[in-house]
Parts: sequence; C-alpha cells; structure tokens
Amino acid sequence: MGLAMASRLHAAGLPVVGTDIRAEAIAKLAASGAATAPTAATAAANADALVLMTVTIDQAEAVLFEAGAAAALSPASIIALMATCAPARVTALAGRLAALGHHLIDAPVSGGVVGAEAGTLTIMAAAPKPIFAHAEPWLRVMGSNLHHLGERPGQGAAMKIVNQLLCGVHIAVAAEGLAFAERQGIDPALALEILSASAASSWMLKNRGPRMVSDDPTVASAVDIFVKDMGLVLDAGRSAKMGLPFAALAHQAFLSASGLGLGAADDSEVIETYRALDPSR
Amino acid sequence: MGLAMASRLHAAGLPVVGTDIRAEAIAKLAASGAATAPTAATAAANADALVLMTVTIDQAEAVLFEAGAAAALSPASIIALMATCAPARVTALAGRLAALGHHLIDAPVSGGVVGAEAGTLTIMAAAPKPIFAHAEPWLRVMGSNLHHLGERPGQGAAMKIVNQLLCGVHIAVAAEGLAFAERQGIDPALALEILSASAASSWMLKNRGPRMVSDDPTVASAVDIFVKDMGLVLDAGRSAKMGLPFAALAHQAFLSASGLGLGAADDSEVIETYRALDPSR
Repeated sequence: MGLAMASRLHAAGLPVVGTDIRAEAIAKLAASGAATAPTAATAAANADALVLMTVTIDQAEAVLFEAGAAAALSPASIIALMATCAPARVTALAGRLAALGHHLIDAPVSGGVVGAEAGTLTIMAAAPKPIFAHAEPWLRVMGSNLHHLGERPGQGAAMKIVNQLLCGVHIAVAAEGLAFAERQGIDPALALEILSASAASSWMLKNRGPRMVSDDPTVASAVDIFVKDMGLVLDAGRSAKMGLPFAALAHQAFLSASGLGLGAADDSEVIETYRALDPSR
Repeated sequence: MGLAMASRLHAAGLPVVGTDIRAEAIAKLAASGAATAPTAATAAANADALVLMTVTIDQAEAVLFEAGAAAALSPASIIALMATCAPARVTALAGRLAALGHHLIDAPVSGGVVGAEAGTLTIMAAAPKPIFAHAEPWLRVMGSNLHHLGERPGQGAAMKIVNQLLCGVHIAVAAEGLAFAERQGIDPALALEILSASAASSWMLKNRGPRMVSDDPTVASAVDIFVKDMGLVLDAGRSAKMGLPFAALAHQAFLSASGLGLGAADDSEVIETYRALDPSR
C-alpha cells in the first residue's frame, strides 16, 4: 500500500523520497520518477513530514528510533502513522515524539490497495487541529475520504478499532446464522440469498457469506488476521475499562478456528467452529 | 398486515372471506368489496384454504381449535401459517392438522405492512412439494419473493429465526461499537458516518444507528420485541441442540435494556446498557 500512496503523492507534485523493506517496491517507485532512498533514515533526512505505512506499531517504532528516522527529520516535523495500532500505544508514541519536538498524526486507513491507488482511502485522523490543518492537503491526496476524529492521537486508532470490532463480529455471526440454517436442513446458499436481501444483511455477510457456503474458499484475508485484530479491539477495551462482550466472543470464535488448524485459511472458515460441533457431518 | 394480504388476494380475483379480531379491519376489507365473516369458524366454513396472520402460534392454535376453524374447513384443506413461530411448535402443529386430514404450509414472512400492501413480502415456505405447488399461485399474490425452504413444516420458521438472529445481533453490536466510539471521545455521529460507508456496515447499523446517536428516538420497534424474538431463536437452538453464543449474548443485551426500564422504548436504545456502565455520563 505504501508504494501506491507514495506514487500518488509524487504524481500530485509533492517532493517525495520513498523507501520500503522490499527492494522491488523501491524500484517500482523509482520507475515512476520519484526519488527513493535505501533506508528510512536517508529517506527522512531533512524532511518536514514522514508518512509511515507499516503493518504494526512495533515496525513503526523500529523505523523511527532504531533505524534513526526520527533523528534524521527536520525539527518540528509531522509524522503520519497510518497502520492499524492499539490506541494506547499510539498515544504513548505521540508523547515520545513530542519530547523530540515532532508532531504525530494518528491516521489509520481503510480501503486497501484499491483505495490507495485511487486516492480514495478513508483516513481516520487524530491530532491537534493546527497540525491536522497543516497536513490536510497531502493527507487528502492519499485519502479523499478524510475525517478529523479528534485532537488526541489514539482517537484515529480507536475509530479503526471500532471498525474492526464490527467487521469481526459480523463475520462470526454470519457463520452462526448460516451454520444454524444448515443444521435445520435449510440449503445454506438459499438462506444466504434470503438473508442478503433482508434487514439481516451486512457488508460482511454479502462478502464472506458466499465463501462460507462454498467448499474450498480462496484466501482473501486469513483467520489469524482477525485473531490479531480482535485482540487489538479487546486490548483497547481494557485500556478504556470497557466491557466489549460481542468483540470478546468473536475473538474466541477466531481463536477456536485457528486452533482447528485454520489460522492461515480464509476468515470465512470461522464457520467450521460451528460445523465441528455438528455430529451429523 | 392480514388486512393488506386479504385485500391483495381479493383484488387478484380470489374468493376471499376475511375476518379479524379488530372490527375495524373487517369493515375496511368489506369496504373494498371482499366478503367478510364475524368469526374464524364462519370465515373458514367450507373453504379449501386458510391463511393465518396472527402474532403468535398460540393465537393461531386458538383460531384453529378453540374457535373451530380447523373443523369448519373442507376436508384436506391447506392452512398457511404466516406468523413468526418456534420451529418445533410449527412441526407439532403440522402433525396435529395432518391427523385431521389437513395440510400445513409453514410460511413466515418479512417485509412488514409496506411489503404486504405491495405484494412483495418475502415468504419462507416449507411444506411437501405438491402442497407447496398447489398453494404457490395464491402465496405469490401476497409475496412475490417466495422461497420453498424445504419439505418439512418448521423449516420456514427456522429460516425466519435465522433472520431474526442476525437482525438482533447486528442491532446489539452496532450499540457496542457506537458506545465504544463515544467512550473513546469520538463523536458518535461521525463514527456512524464512517462505519456506514465501510466494510463494518450492516442494514441494522444504517437503520438503527441514527436513532442510537439521537437523544430521543421515536419507537419503530420495541426492545421487548427482540427480547421475545431472541428468546425464540434460543428456544430453536435448544431444540436443535445447537449452541448460538452470539444470539445468547444479544438476548442478554435486550433483557438488560428491558430491565433498565426500556422494554417499550425503541430497540436502538439497547445502547443504554453500555452507557449505563460509563461513569463519566
């Protein structure tokens, strides 16, 4: 996704220097005419803004501190963290960067590679208003669906976590409903057709449902991704001292699927946790 | 809904005799030119088909047996039960009617009064194929979205129960997500806007979400309706010896809302079960 985002920034005329842990991504960006650098510290050298599209906050911290990007930046730079992270970790990172004189914009995204290439990502940003306003033009180049969630870094991450909460529960309850239809002797494909056209529908039911009722679904997103994401949701609930019973149940469902040996299988296969309890199968 | 369904059957040229416990509904049907009767037994006299649109199966059994409709019908009549009922009760009723020589079509609907008036109800029918085929023309007058779920009465009810399972869980988890956004200091209306446009969306999130984030929602459907419906879902799970953890949790959420004094409030107010645990409110 970082390649697509850097390419858009370059195409918009911004002075981008891109880097990646994958040499192939650096080569592709260079081919588009943008400047590249071999390491995070050289890419960040004397820049006044840094966009981080890592998978985890651990990776983002490694780039900033171990790899030296934070020290290489110009004073009082803006750092946009666009990964899905635990809100409390993001808040702590903002404090650590503030002590170095930098400003963190907490800016997780949704929309995938397709959205990154089109510049239509949803960006859930949180930072003090003046920092957000300063970064808004280049954030909007990456995500036309840009929202300012609040003044405190961590609130963007929290919004992304709420998003993942609903996504994960909707997948798991679609499995419960379709497995219950099966157990009653109802053709699950017919049940899915009826449910998808009714008030029982969800984006995830329509997207994952067809894979739940097919014999050998392709892997679009793995069970273990939701084991991780529902874990982040529950960690955020713990930090906020808030009980999230549906999220907790969904976490257990994905854990059980992973324990059945399906961790790398498509997340729609969480339905196997219900089928495993059906003696007639 | 019965009035709208009878009106459509009459308008389609079928020889309808309608009755209702509300004299007003009988008067409205009579005004449309259809025949009416003061009691279920007189309405059913010598008919070869009976459509029952009661609220509960207890009411349907009272019409059939205490009020004498089953005995008044022609031999080997078809009885369409269109209420939302426990599948096991429907199966038992089919057996009781079979002993009298009649045929039950289990045919619950979704789509509400609007769908009934337009003849676009979704009908989830279960009956032996020849019985279904015999009734199909007049079922289709009431519901253009007609599905044959299976040969065994109870399977239509089971499909409706699966539908209610997803509806109830989707309402309760929308409440969990929006309340979690609030707890993180995120404007819940903004959270709703972002979630409704993402993979986190559901029909219920879009329909109930706006009422969850408004101060005094109008009552479209009461909390206690879902206390009852999730109870039916869990009863059906018990009959099938199937654990339905998400449904069980949703039942608890609606029960808790009812226990907060919100039984007659809009079902979107299940979000108050989360807000009640927020010490800052």
